Amino acid sequence: MYSLSFAFLFILISVCNTVPTKSSNGCGYDACNLGDPNKLNVHIVPHTHDDVGWLKTVDQYYYGARNNIQHAGVQYILDSVMHSLEENPDRRFMYVEIAFFWRWWNEQTDEMRNKVKQFVNEGRLEFISGGWCMNDEASTHYNSIIDQFSLGAEFLRDQFGECARPKIGWQIDPFGHSREHASILAQMGFDGLFFGRADYEDITQRSKTKNMELIWKASANLDRQSWLLTGVLPNGYSAPGSFCFDLFCDDQPIMDDPHLHDYNVPERVKAFLDAAHNEANQYSTNHIIMTMGSDFQYESANQWFKNMDKLMKYVNAQQTNGSNVNVFYSTPSCYLYALNKANHSWTSKTDDFFPYAHHPHGFWTGYFTSRAALKGYERRSNNVLQVTRQLNAFAKTNLRNSTFPLSEAMGLVQHHDAVSGTEKQEVAFDYAQRLADGIDSAVDVINRAYSKLLPLDEKIPPKAPQFLCQLTNISECLPIEGKNQFTLTLWNPTVHTISQHIHVPVTKKYSIRDSTGHVISADLIPISEPTKNIPGRKSFATNQLVFKVILPALGFNTYYFELKTDNEDISITHNEECILQNEYLRVDFDDQGNLLKIKNFKKNIVVPFTSQGFYWYSSFPGNNSQSEFQASGAYIFRPNSSDPQPVSDKRTITCIKGEIVQKAVIVFNKWTSQEISLYDDSKGVEVEWTVGPIPICDKVGKEIILRYDTDIGNQGKFYTDSNGREVLERIRDYRPTWNYTKVEDVSGNYYPVNSRIWIKEPNRQFTVLTDRSEGGSSIHDGSIELMLHRRTLYDDALGVGEPINETAYDQGLVVRGKHFLIIESPSSSALYHRVASQRLYMRPLATYSLPQLSYADYSETYRQTWSALVKDLPLNIHLLTFEQLDTNQYLIRIEHYFELNEDTTYSNSVTFDLQKLFQTHGIINGIVELTLAGNMPVNDMQRLEWITIDKESSKMDKPKMMSVNDLNIVLNPMQIRTFRVTVE
Amino acid sequence: MYSLSFAFLFILISVCNTVPTKSSNGCGYDACNLGDPNKLNVHIVPHTHDDVGWLKTVDQYYYGARNNIQHAGVQYILDSVMHSLEENPDRRFMYVEIAFFWRWWNEQTDEMRNKVKQFVNEGRLEFISGGWCMNDEASTHYNSIIDQFSLGAEFLRDQFGECARPKIGWQIDPFGHSREHASILAQMGFDGLFFGRADYEDITQRSKTKNMELIWKASANLDRQSWLLTGVLPNGYSAPGSFCFDLFCDDQPIMDDPHLHDYNVPERVKAFLDAAHNEANQYSTNHIIMTMGSDFQYESANQWFKNMDKLMKYVNAQQTNGSNVNVFYSTPSCYLYALNKANHSWTSKTDDFFPYAHHPHGFWTGYFTSRAALKGYERRSNNVLQVTRQLNAFAKTNLRNSTFPLSEAMGLVQHHDAVSGTEKQEVAFDYAQRLADGIDSAVDVINRAYSKLLPLDEKIPPKAPQFLCQLTNISECLPIEGKNQFTLTLWNPTVHTISQHIHVPVTKKYSIRDSTGHVISADLIPISEPTKNIPGRKSFATNQLVFKVILPALGFNTYYFELKTDNEDISITHNEECILQNEYLRVDFDDQGNLLKIKNFKKNIVVPFTSQGFYWYSSFPGNNSQSEFQASGAYIFRPNSSDPQPVSDKRTITCIKGEIVQKAVIVFNKWTSQEISLYDDSKGVEVEWTVGPIPICDKVGKEIILRYDTDIGNQGKFYTDSNGREVLERIRDYRPTWNYTKVEDVSGNYYPVNSRIWIKEPNRQFTVLTDRSEGGSSIHDGSIELMLHRRTLYDDALGVGEPINETAYDQGLVVRGKHFLIIESPSSSALYHRVASQRLYMRPLATYSLPQLSYADYSETYRQTWSALVKDLPLNIHLLTFEQLDTNQYLIRIEHYFELNEDTTYSNSVTFDLQKLFQTHGIINGIVELTLAGNMPVNDMQRLEWITIDKESSKMDKPKMMSVNDLNIVLNPMQIRTFRVTVE
Repeated sequence: MYSLSFAFLFILISVCNTVPTKSSNGCGYDACNLGDPNKLNVHIVPHTHDDVGWLKTVDQYYYGARNNIQHAGVQYILDSVMHSLEENPDRRFMYVEIAFFWRWWNEQTDEMRNKVKQFVNEGRLEFISGGWCMNDEASTHYNSIIDQFSLGAEFLRDQFGECARPKIGWQIDPFGHSREHASILAQMGFDGLFFGRADYEDITQRSKTKNMELIWKASANLDRQSWLLTGVLPNGYSAPGSFCFDLFCDDQPIMDDPHLHDYNVPERVKAFLDAAHNEANQYSTNHIIMTMGSDFQYESANQWFKNMDKLMKYVNAQQTNGSNVNVFYSTPSCYLYALNKANHSWTSKTDDFFPYAHHPHGFWTGYFTSRAALKGYERRSNNVLQVTRQLNAFAKTNLRNSTFPLSEAMGLVQHHDAVSGTEKQEVAFDYAQRLADGIDSAVDVINRAYSKLLPLDEKIPPKAPQFLCQLTNISECLPIEGKNQFTLTLWNPTVHTISQHIHVPVTKKYSIRDSTGHVISADLIPISEPTKNIPGRKSFATNQLVFKVILPALGFNTYYFELKTDNEDISITHNEECILQNEYLRVDFDDQGNLLKIKNFKKNIVVPFTSQGFYWYSSFPGNNSQSEFQASGAYIFRPNSSDPQPVSDKRTITCIKGEIVQKAVIVFNKWTSQEISLYDDSKGVEVEWTVGPIPICDKVGKEIILRYDTDIGNQGKFYTDSNGREVLERIRDYRPTWNYTKVEDVSGNYYPVNSRIWIKEPNRQFTVLTDRSEGGSSIHDGSIELMLHRRTLYDDALGVGEPINETAYDQGLVVRGKHFLIIESPSSSALYHRVASQRLYMRPLATYSLPQLSYADYSETYRQTWSALVKDLPLNIHLLTFEQLDTNQYLIRIEHYFELNEDTTYSNSVTFDLQKLFQTHGIINGIVELTLAGNMPVNDMQRLEWITIDKESSKMDKPKMMSVNDLNIVLNPMQIRTFRVTVE
Repeated sequence: MYSLSFAFLFILISVCNTVPTKSSNGCGYDACNLGDPNKLNVHIVPHTHDDVGWLKTVDQYYYGARNNIQHAGVQYILDSVMHSLEENPDRRFMYVEIAFFWRWWNEQTDEMRNKVKQFVNEGRLEFISGGWCMNDEASTHYNSIIDQFSLGAEFLRDQFGECARPKIGWQIDPFGHSREHASILAQMGFDGLFFGRADYEDITQRSKTKNMELIWKASANLDRQSWLLTGVLPNGYSAPGSFCFDLFCDDQPIMDDPHLHDYNVPERVKAFLDAAHNEANQYSTNHIIMTMGSDFQYESANQWFKNMDKLMKYVNAQQTNGSNVNVFYSTPSCYLYALNKANHSWTSKTDDFFPYAHHPHGFWTGYFTSRAALKGYERRSNNVLQVTRQLNAFAKTNLRNSTFPLSEAMGLVQHHDAVSGTEKQEVAFDYAQRLADGIDSAVDVINRAYSKLLPLDEKIPPKAPQFLCQLTNISECLPIEGKNQFTLTLWNPTVHTISQHIHVPVTKKYSIRDSTGHVISADLIPISEPTKNIPGRKSFATNQLVFKVILPALGFNTYYFELKTDNEDISITHNEECILQNEYLRVDFDDQGNLLKIKNFKKNIVVPFTSQGFYWYSSFPGNNSQSEFQASGAYIFRPNSSDPQPVSDKRTITCIKGEIVQKAVIVFNKWTSQEISLYDDSKGVEVEWTVGPIPICDKVGKEIILRYDTDIGNQGKFYTDSNGREVLERIRDYRPTWNYTKVEDVSGNYYPVNSRIWIKEPNRQFTVLTDRSEGGSSIHDGSIELMLHRRTLYDDALGVGEPINETAYDQGLVVRGKHFLIIESPSSSALYHRVASQRLYMRPLATYSLPQLSYADYSETYRQTWSALVKDLPLNIHLLTFEQLDTNQYLIRIEHYFELNEDTTYSNSVTFDLQKLFQTHGIINGIVELTLAGNMPVNDMQRLEWITIDKESSKMDKPKMMSVNDLNIVLNPMQIRTFRVTVE
């Protein structure tokens, strides 16, 4: 019911898809007021900031429900803004969050829709950013950032055409800004980015030196393609001083009838002129922007506009008395365009805006980890979504509408109070429910796709459906328990043949046939005590089958499980020395469970560990009354001491050795454990950590890290990725662009780790890959720490109004995740961490089925292996998006996922023939290369030209137009190319 | 500046006066949806309740300024309602307070005005009540009630014509309801009245017996002319249960998209049906009303209407499932019309709805006295206003616009949180300022009028202006101090020649020439110590001249003062026995200052006083957490004990005897005193009381009464007036229409005293007249007490958020006022109290001037006496209104101010020739009799017919049409007739 309904909505949108042509009056930059070159031009930018979930769920915000929690109703905002725009053609408004706009649009009459289209065509309503949400930048993955922008962009293009294409990034609320994100915006064709939050010291210096606006060189690989004019807004994103006219504000309205009491025009005009001059002192051109709005404002837009109309009238009237202030309605695009025309040379920067602190003790580094389970679920959901899209595309099932619920949920969850973990608990549940519902819809698509791909005779669809076992991470898959036979089908979403180790929890013993019918070897490994004790686990399985599979690129294998009786040989020891070893690696533990060292045989590198394990920081229990009483909470990480405590004095170790896997199960205490596994052919070590329930009966909040202490002499430097792609160098207690005042030893050095963190010295590099976003750092030389899970007892007074205190089954939430450790030389590390990280986030999708068929019957009826490719694509290529848009139309994103100069082989440009992706589809007969969001041909892109103070120009050559006559594609390091392809 | 501006505004209105014709689609009752006779019809009545001042000033409320005090902005309410009405023609709205609507209308474009006119003509916007404010009913005087309704009615008639004529009274918030007020509404042609507040016991009984709606027989004199269908609303004036959709409310919106989370249509529909059935159980027809709105709601009207649209759609959709509930947008008029068509017979009542209690300890009887100084100032301001209108009319100065500021201020001050004394202190100051500004404008008119009336040669206007001395009540008139000569001109606003005693504070000695040049006798009386000690008094005057004047009806005399040196003989004793005596009365005091008795020589009646003087009730200091902890505050009078304490053990008496006046100055303590005066020819005794600063250093709130304890055996009965007109019998601890539960001995027996209170036995009646509204009662037989002044330390938790703690000059406010005591037989009392009370509220207006002329020159240059009448009108006639509308057009209200059977002579009908009022104007050549508000010819009035359960019909004969051929007017007891007259 639920998924069908969403499908209906999406169809509704498509039916109404009448793209208006661009107004002759001009929209976009053509519609801009560029002010008076001889005056101080004040761009009044009316806006609302509408979180797609935070204290309330996105739908509660939309409807204005549960206003006792927070007064906010987006339906009314959009209703009332449209009316205010209608009342006065001078007025302008911008809107950002398409998740809300889409809900509203679905409810509107044709009359209202036409009215809104007119506003858009006349530049009176401008979509800025135009993503499904205003995404978080710290804990998001680039795949999902691009998707969420594309989802909004597609809606806008379909409903409004070119006039609605967003050209400006508007990240006013996110708590720190990633370089990759800026690069993505640039690749989407954006001309600029504005945000509201930056480190308080950074802002102080920038405002003093009039460098609040700058050119951000947002990629170390993409050169001018990634440059983005970036502005730090003057008042966060609020109105200056006393000029908030929203119904939530108490600022004085313009009382301009001199016959009534309290007439206040002169004093209000003076205050405005003062505010304008004050702001002009901090900015470098004779244009300034005033953001007139804030969270969920404009519910009664008239109050804003009526007073702004008056204010602007009276302020401009002062020009006759010699005032040089010229104020007018504008938009961020128009303000940016005015900056562009101001003939100014800009400073530039190449680092990012992490971490963000609003005062000396207020480092917003807790949310890098907050709600670690949601962060993990979000990453896995993307995996399901991408596989579902691939299956829909390769099976040509034309069920794009049914993938929409998961796309939409993923779009929402990218929000800066969603995956960030800074929403209220009830709202976090709602996000999780949306992902779950979306996955349910996706499973329908997966089944429809496999119904075409699996049967040898397409007319006989399978009787038994494919289903997911989403709890295999806690060794639970109830539907298969006790069954005599079942199948496991694994879809490999990468463009490379991969080898993978699979865990299947079982209550009985099974032999496993691969896709050719051969029985393959498997280890029957006991399920660990910490796993069996996880609250809520319902499974009776006590063992898991661990086996290796080789999966074809962009294809699937099916494995057939049938009961058997014979035993495998598994060696198990307790609290003895333990050595895990294969031909590449050796991992040593002592009999106390301490990880001693990891050795890379091929490179002859050893990394000894002085210690490795779980520690906890005590959360600062402040009342937030002053900055020194800042509490640690959902946003803020503020430890009470710079020295974290080990979670236990002792640990136990169980050493298990099979043919396929060797693992050490190390239990630290009742609520922390790790399973360190080495697979037969693996070049890395897997660490599966389990944390929780974090005890708080001592009334102390705890923030749990997993720390790896080595002897690597990294000299204060460490490296963290940006949204899963490019990696930035971090230097302890240092900021590249300002004199950093060290106050918080630990939290001031935390950075987002979306996929990897490493330390290195000339010959050794120790890299940790993560399966989700975590906060991480190197607080001491040789050390890498990653924060895994947090449970605090105090709110950090930044709005959410709750401590981050996740519970389930009446106790603290248990979270489980994985690290992947790579010990390599610096020059060879990239090859391993790039490939492994890509495979960690885009894993094979396991679906199970219960066919009531013997293997013989099964293998006669169903295809057991299939690949879309005849041959793997080059190793440094990743298929980021493969989506069926329409019967014969596909959206493809291909990326080179190595950086320049990090690998001698794979850091080079690569060429391949796009037709190879369409072996199973037919001949490509149409191709258009698009900007990254997929909403415009790259050849139509005309980004504004900016000049640095070094006289560098941002101008680039036009890209070569693609043609079906030459489908060879060149990809440079870190380049992503986007295509719309039609096939015969 | 100020007065000119207002004049401008008024002219603006007149210029734009294009009366639209009635829409052919019908407005008013013709536009009503009468529902389905076979269903339960729910009239949804969207409304806002907009106090014209309370916690903020009227202009702050209008603009939405100082929202930190209370979020409210009426400009936005009206803006947003108009937009919502435009969006859906089914929607309806009502508006009440023209003080706000007028402000808004002045700011609108023609386009918006035409839109609003269309709404009015189509019945989508209905003006209900349509007064300048929603006036208080307890402390208001009938003259000002009529004026405030007329001010609103005139605006509506001029701007919108007949479709906008209010037909329903809407007193939803006032705290008790007066019978006179209902009678006034009936005389204005209203068909009904709704209110929200009635005694909790009354409501309990009425809702049980389905008598929430009834016929109020609102006059003991006017029969069916005063009958008014009156309804007590079901939820005060709020929406039922969880159906407040305003932005101030947290009730759940209708979430009707099943694809979004929290879909709630079924539960919301069920809750609404439950609310409708629950309400239907308390009302007698198959029509019920739901008031959808509250204080300052609809600032974002869309939120209300959008949800009501949905709710109504889904509720009515249930009819297909057998629901009998039929819900639709309506107005109070349409609901009333549906009641009228419901073929129902109604119970009736003849008493009033005072006092109002919302719980056993919550008697809203404190506000009968709260802000006694403002209550006095309001009454005096009306005096100035009426005189100014008369002067403008008789001098034909055509300055009606300049009287508007005072009319407008008076209109505002009638508000139920203005003259009631229940506003915040700052707001009370604003009201006072408005009255003061209005009086300043009025003085301009007075001067322009006298410029025509005074000079013998009209071409030579006076050089010296007339000015008021508004502080003569504290014996201060700074401009005349020390002057060699000055004039005093007294305008008599009554239609009778009157004798009056005048006090002029002086620093020197003067002889006084009357209008014929004769020197008249005067007493030079020392100004009392309590007066001289009043904080803020700036005068150096130590004496006052007291003299008697005889003033012509509707005319003036001028008295010329010039320095003299000889002395008068005044006898003064201290703390000795004191007897004041003239040919009618004798007043005895002992040497302790106790009033012993008053004797009426002519009637040979003696009333001995067992005690007389000031007492105080201790204000209950509750925290309002429960009803038993109800504090005494601005609204509530709740004494801590039923026995008030005397303010002092001892008192001093100074006995002063002159030729004109004899007086006893009795000082109780530093903050209470009285001057009891008997004038040479007076038939009553004047008591001038002075109270304050009330001490609160003991942390005890105090409520001061002046109590007169006699031996009159009144057997629990006493009599109080209703808004200065008809008098109602009150019985201690009793209510005429329900079984009264006695809980509060004192405050439950308090009633508003607007002008008089009496007790009587067969041969004696003791009447006390007041100069302003006060709370009063007879708590014990023989006793009359009047509450004069209050100072409390606790807020009574009814919204105002402040105790009533008036201060001036850094101490408690001092208030001074007058009582007038009449000792008569019951049968002869009316003659005295009716005449005296009328003269007390409509006194001669004293204006001073400083001509630099000798008496000889003055008398040659200026007219010193003038009257509009050749002969006095009959004694039982009062000229309520005499106002120049236009060059040759006048508005006149004439009243008979005696009740039936209270006087053998004057309780009869009276006839007189209207032409007699126009001696100085010319011949009446046009006359239309109007309804009381002046907005409709009485012959056009068609009130709805109602039937009582005794089968009495409210239907009346059409009044006789007036004609210039017969200008004789008959007035029956308590009848007021209103005319628009044109003269040649």
